[in-house]
Amino acid sequence: MFISFEGIDGSGKSTQARRLADFLRARGHDVVLTREPGGSDGAEAIRRLLVEGDPDRWSPETELLLFNAARRDHLERLILPVLDRGAWVVSDRFADSTRVYQGATRGDLRELVDALHGLVIRREPDLTVVIDMDPEVALSRGLARGSGEDRFEDFGLPFQQKLRAGFLALAGDFPDRIRIVDGMAGADEVARRVEALV
Amino acid sequence: MFISFEGIDGSGKSTQARRLADFLRARGHDVVLTREPGGSDGAEAIRRLLVEGDPDRWSPETELLLFNAARRDHLERLILPVLDRGAWVVSDRFADSTRVYQGATRGDLRELVDALHGLVIRREPDLTVVIDMDPEVALSRGLARGSGEDRFEDFGLPFQQKLRAGFLALAGDFPDRIRIVDGMAGADEVARRVEALV
Ligand SMILES: Nc1ncnc2c1ncn2[C@@H]1O[C@H](COP(=O)(O)OP(=O)(O)OP(=O)(O)O)[C@@H](O)[C@H]1O
Ligand SMILES: Nc1ncnc2c1ncn2[C@@H]1O[C@H](COP(=O)(O)OP(=O)(O)OP(=O)(O)O)[C@@H](O)[C@H]1O
Ligand SMILES: [Mg+2]
Ligand SMILES: [Mg+2]
Repeated sequence: MFISFEGIDGSGKSTQARRLADFLRARGHDVVLTREPGGSDGAEAIRRLLVEGDPDRWSPETELLLFNAARRDHLERLILPVLDRGAWVVSDRFADSTRVYQGATRGDLRELVDALHGLVIRREPDLTVVIDMDPEVALSRGLARGSGEDRFEDFGLPFQQKLRAGFLALAGDFPDRIRIVDGMAGADEVARRVEALV
Repeated sequence: MFISFEGIDGSGKSTQARRLADFLRARGHDVVLTREPGGSDGAEAIRRLLVEGDPDRWSPETELLLFNAARRDHLERLILPVLDRGAWVVSDRFADSTRVYQGATRGDLRELVDALHGLVIRREPDLTVVIDMDPEVALSRGLARGSGEDRFEDFGLPFQQKLRAGFLALAGDFPDRIRIVDGMAGADEVARRVEALV
């Protein structure tokens, strides 16, 4: 199974992806925990171009091409080989982030997002968990990390509010694949709900 | 006018692009000399991912996405603003390099190359000069530079021979835009022929 976690910045994706991987491993499964952008050597190099620097470092179109380059590398060098050997992939973000971040917030690029996905990615996760929560709480969690990878957080609160609406709309577009989990609860409670879904 | 130079590695593109820029400036024109991949801050950062490392660092598809990201940045941040102010752009490579390098040599990606160009680039130079020459001579010239940016040279001679054939075929596909100049002559003689064309 290929499972992705999605949601706004600071919503708890990394925390929950790690916990789900631990949960599955404790049940004897072979699990590879990965993340986007990044997850393979090439994609991690591209990630650094995306998450560092000024908010206007890249235009929405250029940014979109870079995300697709990173995703293609991640898919063909890590995700597909892992799935082919019969193991699980748990990914902290995948293509839905691009649909929402580049397709529904920065310019109206959803058509280009879908065209590129159709040309070079095509693959979807088997299950996607969207962690939904108040952007104001999530933003304060995220900035508390102080990781320096804050180019997207720097777009500010109204941007995070658009992202939240974008993820909820997307869940309506892919009802068979995407499940929403309330992320305002404590991490243990969120993890229990995710495990029940999986 | 937007003029590009194309040709296999070591054929003299950089030399002739610089000479043409000097020639036009001497006649009082405002000229911006640039290159691909690169030419703008973002595109130069992407260039480093492309020209360094092992030949198999990127799959043909990932490489193609990175070239399009670099070109989009170069186009919107440098080329179009320069043309809009009424100046000349002389570029050491542009989209034809992608058509030939990724479209005709590494896998058969020409359809994907054209689809991506149509989605995110669209613009063509007003004139493209292909410097044609024997790959064996060109390869020895190129390696003599020892610049470290030799990822493509490392694909070897048969690859350069395919490139040469690819550029010649492309000139047939775009007869109004692409002109071929013999690059085996000395740099002065080649420059004179380019100036006559322009
Ligand atoms: N349910 C929770 N309750 C309170 N704090 C949480 C919860 N889940 C995660 N956190 C904390 O919030 C911060 C952000 O969590 P995490 O890094 O998992 O979010 P994220 O969605 O991966 O963020 P980003 O998109 O920025 O990578 C971390 O400091 C984490 O420990
Ligand atoms: N007509 C020429 N005759 C002999 N040597 C030349 C000629 N033109 C260029 N050179 C030399 O050949 C080498 C390669 O030239 P140049 O860098 O201009 O080629 P290029 O096509 O830009 O190569 P690359 O694709 O590797 O960037 C340089 O050392 C240059 O000085
Ligand atoms: Mg995270
Ligand atoms: Mg050169």
